Formats: sequence, C-alpha cells, structure tokens
Amino acid sequence: MTTWVEGAAGSLFDIDNLPYGVFSRPGEEPRVGVRIGDHVLDLSPVAAAEMLDVHHVFQEPSLNALMAEGRQVRTSVRAWVTGLLSDETERDLVEPHLWPVADVTLHLPVEVADYVDFYASLDHASNVGRIFRPDGEALLPNWRHLPVGYHGRAGTVVASGTPVVRPMGQRLSTGSTGEGPPTPTYGASVRLDIEAELGFVVGTGTALGDRVRVEEFADHVFGVVGLNDWSARDIQAWEYVPLGPFLGKSFATSISHWVTPIEALEAAWCDLPGQDPRPLDYLGPDVARGLDIAVEVELDGEVVSRPPYRSMYWSPEQMLAHLTVNGASLRTGDLYASGTISGPEPGQRGSFLELSWGGKEPFGNGRTFLEDGDVVTLRYTAPGTGGGRIALGEVSGVIEPARD
Amino acid sequence: MTTWVEGAAGSLFDIDNLPYGVFSRPGEEPRVGVRIGDHVLDLSPVAAAEMLDVHHVFQEPSLNALMAEGRQVRTSVRAWVTGLLSDETERDLVEPHLWPVADVTLHLPVEVADYVDFYASLDHASNVGRIFRPDGEALLPNWRHLPVGYHGRAGTVVASGTPVVRPMGQRLSTGSTGEGPPTPTYGASVRLDIEAELGFVVGTGTALGDRVRVEEFADHVFGVVGLNDWSARDIQAWEYVPLGPFLGKSFATSISHWVTPIEALEAAWCDLPGQDPRPLDYLGPDVARGLDIAVEVELDGEVVSRPPYRSMYWSPEQMLAHLTVNGASLRTGDLYASGTISGPEPGQRGSFLELSWGGKEPFGNGRTFLEDGDVVTLRYTAPGTGGGRIALGEVSGVIEPARD
Repeated sequence: MTTWVEGAAGSLFDIDNLPYGVFSRPGEEPRVGVRIGDHVLDLSPVAAAEMLDVHHVFQEPSLNALMAEGRQVRTSVRAWVTGLLSDETERDLVEPHLWPVADVTLHLPVEVADYVDFYASLDHASNVGRIFRPDGEALLPNWRHLPVGYHGRAGTVVASGTPVVRPMGQRLSTGSTGEGPPTPTYGASVRLDIEAELGFVVGTGTALGDRVRVEEFADHVFGVVGLNDWSARDIQAWEYVPLGPFLGKSFATSISHWVTPIEALEAAWCDLPGQDPRPLDYLGPDVARGLDIAVEVELDGEVVSRPPYRSMYWSPEQMLAHLTVNGASLRTGDLYASGTISGPEPGQRGSFLELSWGGKEPFGNGRTFLEDGDVVTLRYTAPGTGGGRIALGEVSGVIEPARD
Repeated sequence: MTTWVEGAAGSLFDIDNLPYGVFSRPGEEPRVGVRIGDHVLDLSPVAAAEMLDVHHVFQEPSLNALMAEGRQVRTSVRAWVTGLLSDETERDLVEPHLWPVADVTLHLPVEVADYVDFYASLDHASNVGRIFRPDGEALLPNWRHLPVGYHGRAGTVVASGTPVVRPMGQRLSTGSTGEGPPTPTYGASVRLDIEAELGFVVGTGTALGDRVRVEEFADHVFGVVGLNDWSARDIQAWEYVPLGPFLGKSFATSISHWVTPIEALEAAWCDLPGQDPRPLDYLGPDVARGLDIAVEVELDGEVVSRPPYRSMYWSPEQMLAHLTVNGASLRTGDLYASGTISGPEPGQRGSFLELSWGGKEPFGNGRTFLEDGDVVTLRYTAPGTGGGRIALGEVSGVIEPARD
C-alpha cells in the first residue's frame, strides 16, 4: 500500500500509521483529523461528501464520539481512510482537506473519563524499591501477583505542549531525618520528575458488574498515547502512606496529541519477558502479550534515556482485565497508563529518580531533578505493518516556575 | 418563613432545606427538581413560566449545568424557590408541578468529574491504625499535618438504591500467615464493608495552576451528599501497598439522590474539635470550621452506629484547600468525600471494620462484615436555619451475590 501524499511514504507517519487527533485552523472549531506524513486530513468534510453514516463523529472536539462507535466502526473508518490516502482517484476530493501540521493547532484528543496509572515495569518497581528501601526486598509481596495500580486525576490530563507549573505543597526538607517527629514545610517541589509511560484509551465501555477478559482487549481499547506522568517526589514521599500518590501527581499528566489506533500496532505485539509465578487465570497468562515500542526521553534537546516497552512485566491486556475484575465499569474516554517504563540497563530508565538514583548520582550534564525552563520530550516508535517503523504521538512539556 | 405545601412544615424537608435532585416521571426525561416535604417540585416548567434567565439548566439530566452557574445564581435560585413555596399567591402556578416523591424515579444527581476520598476522621484513622498495626503508632507521621486523600473511580459513583454486587478479586485467605511467601487466591470478597461518609460537590471550577483558599470554600462547593464508600477489605489489604486502594473500592460508591445546598447548612457550622500541631498557613487554621451533622448507620432495619460528623479532625474547607494547593484544577461535578466518619465512642464508628474490630468482635446481631441480601442505609440530619432539623439525602444499597 502506497500513499499519494507527498513526503509521507517511508516517513514515520506513513499509510500504515494514521493516528487520530483533534485540530483546529484559525477561527474554526476543533474537530477530528488523521495524520499522514506532515499533514493532517480534515475528516469531517470528506466524510460528509462521501455520505459516511458516522460523519458527525468527526465534527466533535474530541475523539470520544468516534471511539464510542466501537471496534467495527473503528476498523471500517481506518479502511476507508487508508483507501482515501492510497487511491489516486480520491486525490482530487481529499487533497483540499490536507493541512500542514505546522499550520494547525492541536488539542487534547480525548475527553478523559477515569484515569488509572499502573506500575507494570519490573525494573522500575525494583529500582524504586532499592532506592527507598535499600535494606529490604526490592519488590513488595503483591507485585508479581497483580498489576498494582491507582486512580489519578482525570481533570488535569493535558495535551502535549501545555506548560507544567512547578507545584507547591507540603514536603519534608531534603535530607530531613532524625530526632523528634518529622515537620513538613510549605514550598515549591524541589524534586520534580517525569515518568515516561504509555497510555491506553478505552473506546467501548462496559456495564457495572461486567469483567473484560484478556482476549477482549481490542474490543474495548481504541488506541494508545504517549504519556508523561509528572511527579513531585518530595510531595509524594510525604503524603503517600497509606492511601497512595495524590498531590505529588495530580497537578498535571501530559498525553500526546495523536492517538495511535490499536490496529496500527499489529506488528508490535511480542512475547512478554516472562511471568513468575504464573498469574491467576483471570490474568490470562497463556495469551497475554507485550508491545515492542521504543521510547526516547529527551531533556533540553539531548536524549538521556531509551526505555524499551517490550521489557514491561505486565501486559496491557492484563492491566485491563485486572482493572475490571471487580466489576468496575469502563466508559468511553477512560485512560489507563503503564507506569514508568524502565529497562534493565541504566540508560533505559524512565524517570529522573532512577536515572539519578534518588538524586545521588547526577546524569547527563550533571542533572538530578527538573529545573525551571527544562523541556522534556518523550518519543515513541514501533514496527509498522508496512515493514518500516511508525511514530506514536510525542509528549512534550516545559517547566514553569512555581506560583507563590 | 412557612411553606404552604401540605405536610412540609415541621418536617425534615421544610422550607429551610430544599435539596436538589434529578427525577423523572413515567415516559418523561430526567430533569431537575427540588424537594419540599414529601414532594418534588418540577422546576423546569415553573422557571419557564416565570421566564427565568437560567430556566434551561433545570431541563438537564444532572445538576451540573445549574451548579456551573456559580454561587450568585445558586443563591438567587434558592431565594426564588423559597418564595415560590412560601408565598400563597404562587400556589396556583406551582402546585400543578408538585409530585409525590413516591411517584417519581430519582436518578444520580451529578455527573461526577473527579472523585477524591479523604481520611479526615481522627478516630477512624486511629482505629484502623490500631487494628492493622497493634504494636505500632496508631497514626502515621503525616496524618496530623495534612488531610490524607486519594483519587477514587468517578465512573462507578452510583445513586442510592443501586444494588451493589459483591466484588471478585485477589485476596489472601483470611488468617493467611506464616511460612513462605503469601499466595493470593481468586474469589468473592468475604470482608465487604461500608464507609459512612459525607460528600462535597463542586459547582464552580478553577483554572489549572489556581489554588482555592479555605475562605473561598462556598465560592466553589455547591452542596453536600450522603456517601457510602463500599470497601472490600480483603482485596484492599492485599493490593494497597504502595499505591493505595484500587479495586477494593472501585466497584461502587453510592451517593444520595439529594444534594443539600451549602446555604441550607448555615446553622450547622461549628468549631473543629481542635488541631495539634497547628496546620500550615495554607490550611487556614484560624478560620476552618466543622459541620454538626448527625449520621445513622442502619443495617437491615436496625441502627448499628451513630457517627457524629462534628468530631471530624479536618474541615471540609481544608480538604478543598489541600486538594488544590498544588495547582490541580477543579471542574463542575468534582466530588470529594470526608472519609469514614467515626466518633470516639464504640457506637459511633462508621465502618464494620471498626464496629467488629477487624472482624474479631461481632456487633449487633453477631455481625462482622456484609452478607448477601444485607441492606445498608445511611441517614444524615443537621440543624436547619429555621430552628428545627433538616435531613440530608439518605444513601441505601442492597448487597447482591458475586457473579462468578
């Protein structure tokens, strides 16, 4: 399959990729587009001209209406778009609705319903365990039995490019130890961090009481986004016992502008590294798979880490089965994230906490945690079905000073 | 002020109460009503007849549009409704739109945006600490410095009356101890519990980066609901380290049909029991207040506990200030709950975990945790501005067997 769109063939946004996003042109309302090469295709007028049943879903300011149509419509729309962009006879109809990405504004693609964050990397969980409990077991007893997760704040999920204001809050002074009870102070976080993650967006919901089996993953998940779970380690360390992270995370979570449909990742599925002990049956240990996605963490223009998603312990399918095993319902727009992606090598760690080993071993140009003005960009690529590689949406953010 | 509505004067739903809800009549769409005595007033036709600017907000299937109008509209609407129901000359206009509560269907009143659950009772936190860590400090070091909280699942907040299906999941067998690593099993929760709480519903949101001061509480909070945070203690105990409760809570959270506006609680504000050490300035230690609300926990028709909300350590205003101190934005429909309300006496405990002291000391008719078929109802009353008492919305639910 070859696209007629100039510059797209052989690029990271070739015809086998086709991620969806929400864009606007000056003075116009946000609506749904699909990316091809360096262009975004305005789907709404083309769908209306071709009298597509579901043309109204492309006029919405989020992907939710499209996603809610379900798996069959999702695959039909993808086949239709593939035809539009590969068939030369469609060119006259389609070309007037292609806009350079550089000339449009990109928006948050999804109206997020509930946001769940997992902790699915064995290397990340082990590193964090070693940093915080140097004399104890690296992994807690439950970790190899279930994908540990928690709910985050859906209302502060923001689009790539949104500046991140350094959060204020309660924290113990760095190095505070010893005599007497701990006394927190109020101030700006001094241990601001990233977490390089992958996010999964739910298209088709479930009723309260239903469970999603591992095999039903693609019936419910529409696609994936790049995700940076910004974390204030000092606020988190003080607050998180016993109910988990709260204000140390809830100030911002950034996701990519582009949602890569699950179908574009068909060539990226791979074996899991291996699970021991064997998970309980509802976690589908015989069928659950990993994803071979390469991640790059860029700090101020320099790549400081290359986390491999294929090293993740828990499968995206297992996370979804676990999330719903208690009968919790899913809604269109639910987002669940993998947790920090870290590989076994030092250069594969997905957080500054790990890269600097708790702030004790500066990395890159002598860095530990984020400074004001820092720009962090996460990039993701995967094998495409066309034989080359495809890019997932990148996630970028600049740190702004705290507001006192 | 006296209402002309028969049976309402002197009742728990007198003219000084007037909670809002969403109701429907057979064959009609859900819309906004206000409760007076044993009736619900259909606000939409009356507002249209009187050409109220905001009459459209009453045609919505949730209170969100009304709540989003802000504090000034909220108080104007309340004054208008008070006039309608107290002024005899309005009777001919209004009376045709009064329906017996028993003849309408009541719905989830709020489209919940983000749901946060706090842990604001000193007695509850101390009891839980003593039950789970009998040899350690009852309270963790952070507890007296900040209102500990976490995000729950907004998509499984359900209306009072919705049956609660006993959740399946991973848990250690009761009494599992000792040799070798712990091994979980899959099955239905056998330690299903309630948490009697109060919920606060946000009307007016904030921008990302803003903080809400303690004094600004009533600019943002529209009203309160009764709330039961159903909890599967065995699932929770196994999963919650280190990221907090997840599937042990996310299967269902019930709220009352009625949202009591903050203005109806003017006579209920009271002093906090006292905070030591003095909280940091952003928690407004000199201005934060408590609420004198009495709670009853009824199990299968018998009152088993009477938790007093006035004994709560952290103020509703402090919880909101803390939630936003890191710049996390608020949205219309955000819901935050107090955490289990427990008083200092054994008969004032707001969970079965505490009432049965970890399952070791049966209470009532020899009960520990919830059995299939159990019906739990939480009832709330407070001093009204008219000199009597007002009822907040009650929360009820029946336990259905697990679905295997």
